[in-house]
Amino acid sequence: MSRLVMKFGGTSVADLERIRNVAAHVKREVEAGSEVAVVVSAMAGKTNELIAWCKDAGSYFDNPEYDAVVASGELVTAGLLALVLKDVGLQARSWAGWQIPLITNDAHGSARIEKIDGRNLVDGFRRGEIAVVAGFQGLHASTNRVTTLGRGGSDTSAVALAAAIDAGRCDIYTDVDGVYTTDPRVVSKARRLDKVSFEEMLEMASLGAKVLQERSVEVALLHKVRLYVRSSFDDPAHPKPGTLICDEEEIVEQQIVTGIAFSRDEAQITLREVADKPGVAAAIFVPLADANINVDMIIQVVSDDTTTTDITFTVPAAEFERSMEILEARRQAIGYAKLNGAQDVVKISAIGIGMRSHSGVAARAFKALAEKGINIRAITTSEIKFSMLIDEPYTELAVRTLHTLYGLDAK
Amino acid sequence: MSRLVMKFGGTSVADLERIRNVAAHVKREVEAGSEVAVVVSAMAGKTNELIAWCKDAGSYFDNPEYDAVVASGELVTAGLLALVLKDVGLQARSWAGWQIPLITNDAHGSARIEKIDGRNLVDGFRRGEIAVVAGFQGLHASTNRVTTLGRGGSDTSAVALAAAIDAGRCDIYTDVDGVYTTDPRVVSKARRLDKVSFEEMLEMASLGAKVLQERSVEVALLHKVRLYVRSSFDDPAHPKPGTLICDEEEIVEQQIVTGIAFSRDEAQITLREVADKPGVAAAIFVPLADANINVDMIIQVVSDDTTTTDITFTVPAAEFERSMEILEARRQAIGYAKLNGAQDVVKISAIGIGMRSHSGVAARAFKALAEKGINIRAITTSEIKFSMLIDEPYTELAVRTLHTLYGLDAK
Repeated sequence: MSRLVMKFGGTSVADLERIRNVAAHVKREVEAGSEVAVVVSAMAGKTNELIAWCKDAGSYFDNPEYDAVVASGELVTAGLLALVLKDVGLQARSWAGWQIPLITNDAHGSARIEKIDGRNLVDGFRRGEIAVVAGFQGLHASTNRVTTLGRGGSDTSAVALAAAIDAGRCDIYTDVDGVYTTDPRVVSKARRLDKVSFEEMLEMASLGAKVLQERSVEVALLHKVRLYVRSSFDDPAHPKPGTLICDEEEIVEQQIVTGIAFSRDEAQITLREVADKPGVAAAIFVPLADANINVDMIIQVVSDDTTTTDITFTVPAAEFERSMEILEARRQAIGYAKLNGAQDVVKISAIGIGMRSHSGVAARAFKALAEKGINIRAITTSEIKFSMLIDEPYTELAVRTLHTLYGLDAK
Repeated sequence: MSRLVMKFGGTSVADLERIRNVAAHVKREVEAGSEVAVVVSAMAGKTNELIAWCKDAGSYFDNPEYDAVVASGELVTAGLLALVLKDVGLQARSWAGWQIPLITNDAHGSARIEKIDGRNLVDGFRRGEIAVVAGFQGLHASTNRVTTLGRGGSDTSAVALAAAIDAGRCDIYTDVDGVYTTDPRVVSKARRLDKVSFEEMLEMASLGAKVLQERSVEVALLHKVRLYVRSSFDDPAHPKPGTLICDEEEIVEQQIVTGIAFSRDEAQITLREVADKPGVAAAIFVPLADANINVDMIIQVVSDDTTTTDITFTVPAAEFERSMEILEARRQAIGYAKLNGAQDVVKISAIGIGMRSHSGVAARAFKALAEKGINIRAITTSEIKFSMLIDEPYTELAVRTLHTLYGLDAK
């Protein structure tokens, strides 16, 4: 008998009508012969409400109490879905994280899963029972306290659970019908992809595609859990195809470039005329790392006089002000002439495992953007992707240009 | 060091401003030197919202899933109060029922407490930690599922917890400032009582006084937990006195009648010309008991011909239609001439442990009501109370008459 994990996010369980629709999707899979574990998020808006109350309550934000409050939202959805499943004639039982148990470390608010004991759920399958699991939450064993996995953690719950119960696939139901070559709101010719490799999806998620949480793809890659991204808004009786995220060996027709991602969540910082001597990079980046600021896209340009250099890098937009303050306070220690910042920048990335075996892929992009008069502020590359920082107003033009350039436009 | 349980109901924790007020009450007691466990209900309205969703979700109402959903409301309040307590400089930790653990039987929706292990909470006290306990909920150990104690169950949680941790008192904070001689909305001269005995409070709660849940008073009586009913709407810095519910030996000045209670939640049923033979009472009352209908105030009047009798009794108003249907269906088996029902009736009761040592207390009431032209439909008495069923429109007049008669009016 095949075993399946089905995960439904907040908009898919926003109210009882939507939850009934979820039950219809579950019923279809059960009737097709699968043992099913369903992982649910809180009803849309509920988690934000709970977080807002916690913020109002006090300044102790990275705290077990925050988790105790916020994890309650998923319990409600899980119980309601179990009730609806019973109402349509199926056997079901809801599971809180601590009941499974799903054991995490004690990093409250962004806990990591350490171990899932799937035996209780599997016992339920033997009794013909659907497991309805509250996503996003776990238990820290030695303190016996509830933890949460952080935003989007329900995807990670679902994937880790699929690995624990040895499910053949983990279906991520969401409000779009799959992974696209790029954001369809920006490029009308964007296409849904039938298959994407784990590695490509991981890059897409980290580079701005919002359809899956990065951590969940990491876990899927690690445990080789096949993910299927699909729409919960389909007619449950006639579901449409989605996108399978799988091992690259399952993908027969490899494109050179699979998708174009972009992220507006970037800010650029440049230090001018930094002394070109050993230790200067450490003087800049160690204080930022100590402040938990994630630095990306570092480039260094030696200036004409060869005794100084300009250093440019990006940080998340939300950390821009804090980064600037840290660097200003260390002007003396670092020794630079000028500090510049830019917030109206965007990072555009092209991703494809085909890049491994094809050279000159990025160079074609540089040429195409230059022809459109788009200035590239910074470039980084890795084995299966390259990213370019450009001025924000050119976002749509650049994305469309690359989408056409790499043959991704729908026919 | 004295140990105290403080319980706050839904209106006392309705929003964050109210929760901050609760924290101020708690802080006062901690600074006065008490080890404190706080038991909280869900924010006002939240439990009703969750129940409404469960009803919408399906017909499986007396079900563990209902409890899984509904118990989430208290988790939110407990976490938020712990956050607020930390924000005002105190140490605190929230506790779900399953974390304590508070063990119940498996009667989901109206579970009974079987055992509370207070050791974890007491360990917390030793670390200087306030225990913030989600009321109304427990754990059924062998299924590892969350249970709820039924409406008003947070009072019962608090009292049972006070017994488990050997607290000197259990303070029930509510939206009134104590127990009154009768409902002040009906009798403007109603007085707050300084002290009420457990037995009197038990009768008052069962006879219509809404200030405390009956079950919680039973548990208090059983374990001799002194209850103090007081207002959460006072200025926390200058709390006003409430009502102490205690052993009768603590009460120096005993009144003959302590309070007048009334309940509109009654319906009267009369069977006319029932054959006066053995087994007829069983034919009437066994089917009602089998249908879980609680019969109260049974009276039997032998008719003139002495071969038949009229039997009158009351049932909860909500069970009236169902009771009538059951009796109609059994007309043949019971053998009665006519079935009458009345829903516009009210039960008025006078309660006082002084009745044990004074005779003729009830007779004075019958006379006083007769003088006002109020017809008494049925009477029941017990050691420390008597109840009369009268027509609903006379409620206020009857309550006021008895309140004056027994010297309860405020000076």
